Amino acid sequence: MIRIAIAGYGNLGKGVEAAVVNAPDMELVGIFTRRSPQGITSESGVKVLPFDDLWNMENDIDVVINCMGSATDLPETTPLIASKFNVVDSFDTHANIPEHFDKVNEAALSGGKIGIISSGWDPGLFSLMRIYMESALPEGKTYTFWGRGVSQGHSDAIRRIPGVKDARQYTVPVEASMEKVRRGEEPVFETRDMHTRECFVVAAEDGDKAAIEKQIVEMPNYFADYNTSVTFIDEEELENNHKGLPHAGNVIRSGVTGLKGQEGNTLEFSLKLDSNPLFTGSVLAATARAAYRLFGKGETGGRTVLDIPPAFYSPEDMEELRKHIL
Amino acid sequence: MIRIAIAGYGNLGKGVEAAVVNAPDMELVGIFTRRSPQGITSESGVKVLPFDDLWNMENDIDVVINCMGSATDLPETTPLIASKFNVVDSFDTHANIPEHFDKVNEAALSGGKIGIISSGWDPGLFSLMRIYMESALPEGKTYTFWGRGVSQGHSDAIRRIPGVKDARQYTVPVEASMEKVRRGEEPVFETRDMHTRECFVVAAEDGDKAAIEKQIVEMPNYFADYNTSVTFIDEEELENNHKGLPHAGNVIRSGVTGLKGQEGNTLEFSLKLDSNPLFTGSVLAATARAAYRLFGKGETGGRTVLDIPPAFYSPEDMEELRKHIL
Repeated sequence: MIRIAIAGYGNLGKGVEAAVVNAPDMELVGIFTRRSPQGITSESGVKVLPFDDLWNMENDIDVVINCMGSATDLPETTPLIASKFNVVDSFDTHANIPEHFDKVNEAALSGGKIGIISSGWDPGLFSLMRIYMESALPEGKTYTFWGRGVSQGHSDAIRRIPGVKDARQYTVPVEASMEKVRRGEEPVFETRDMHTRECFVVAAEDGDKAAIEKQIVEMPNYFADYNTSVTFIDEEELENNHKGLPHAGNVIRSGVTGLKGQEGNTLEFSLKLDSNPLFTGSVLAATARAAYRLFGKGETGGRTVLDIPPAFYSPEDMEELRKHIL
Repeated sequence: MIRIAIAGYGNLGKGVEAAVVNAPDMELVGIFTRRSPQGITSESGVKVLPFDDLWNMENDIDVVINCMGSATDLPETTPLIASKFNVVDSFDTHANIPEHFDKVNEAALSGGKIGIISSGWDPGLFSLMRIYMESALPEGKTYTFWGRGVSQGHSDAIRRIPGVKDARQYTVPVEASMEKVRRGEEPVFETRDMHTRECFVVAAEDGDKAAIEKQIVEMPNYFADYNTSVTFIDEEELENNHKGLPHAGNVIRSGVTGLKGQEGNTLEFSLKLDSNPLFTGSVLAATARAAYRLFGKGETGGRTVLDIPPAFYSPEDMEELRKHIL
């Protein structure tokens, strides 16, 4: 049994918890939180402990899955954990991945452990799709579309506007643009050609709806470059129709083969998830298995999904996999 | 530059030739054939040599891509080549993969080389999709659909019927069945529920069309278990409308996440190829790069795509890949 610890107990931590509890070859040792563990009851019944208790449990844990936030927590805590434990995270601030990798690599090398960063579905599964597609079809162009699904970062941005009580933002891919890509046209898109943004907003009683809408659609980076719709709803409707965290996405590559590039090809990967954090948690659990395998082979240092042999994610052995997967 | 040799010069060999000639980091040393090389001119102008010349060129070749047929050639020649060279093949007789693997592994270990078997798209890319999908979503079911595309084995089977001059067989997935899978119904299918078979047949002048049709639709394994349509056409129409070798396919997995399996998810990979052998050749060229990398790390023995770190297929270095792929 691979002994797993979870660090951080938000939606993602709960997703990992479910995946680990259901895995045939894993045991959940505990959940470690930087909040006060008093009053936190885990969904599986496993014990919830203060984060700093981790440092006394080196002999009890094979892999720590770090489920804290990407913005400020992971850059600090993943290297810290990597110096003592094999660790997996879902760091997703694309521009800062090289820097985060270097820090985790250094810490993991110093501790003689494995640190896998940026797993999940994007980065993660989608990164794998991009590298396989580019390698199989070197002459071509890759596009990533996200949605329809809830963007938590964009929902949070709306909630910070004065007069907003609650909000949900859906990222929606432009179907006509996906069709162009699938036809091999290799289009050049503006930001607004690829995705639209749908906002469902509960205004406070004294909230100025016109002002809120203006602030949303003009918000730089988040909304200004998109076609954005704003729909005001009441709390009951938010609760009934917008409580879930579904997501979806597509990676599409079109390109040519042949001595003269005479033949067209399209490769596409898509996913559709009722719950983004539950699925991401499931991918992280499989990645923890890979970390355990790499460590078992005597490897140490930083890794990403691009370095990991695919079989390492599976509970089955190679002989069995060659029989039923190939 | 990775120095590549091609063994076997049919459609697949030509596909590999195009991919290698277009690769920035590869050099095509020669094409080796068991037919008489006299009168064979390669499409790229590279020299065509007798197969046995290979044995004098150990110092000139980094990887041999074996493009011979799966039925009888690869089981014999891939182990033979693996004892002297790094080698890649596209062995696709699923039931015999374990046996073929063992032979190639033994030969490659004895020669201190790398032997990668069963690359291409199925087995190959589709195998990768199956293992990632199963690992990310362990509670679920995976389905593979092929087509619409030309099955060369089935076309050959029709051509062997007396009174048939030429034929093309298309394998066509049943769209309604794919939709059921996408909806997460985890259906149980009979063979005929997943694919239909469309046959375009040129009869000889004295051919008995009714007898030909009966022989096709009743042919065991190939057609009897499918809904099969037979359309007689003339040679001109075959030449004009059925000359290409397009193919397509989908791997779809649906499954559940959550402590109680309460949330649904669907993952799907699809490809659409104007030319099956050109794309397969392109995948084999990328696999040769991986063989070269593995050998460069001092590894030896048999491998499949399930063992290979994804980054090894790409001409770019890890640092660059972490920046733009993750």
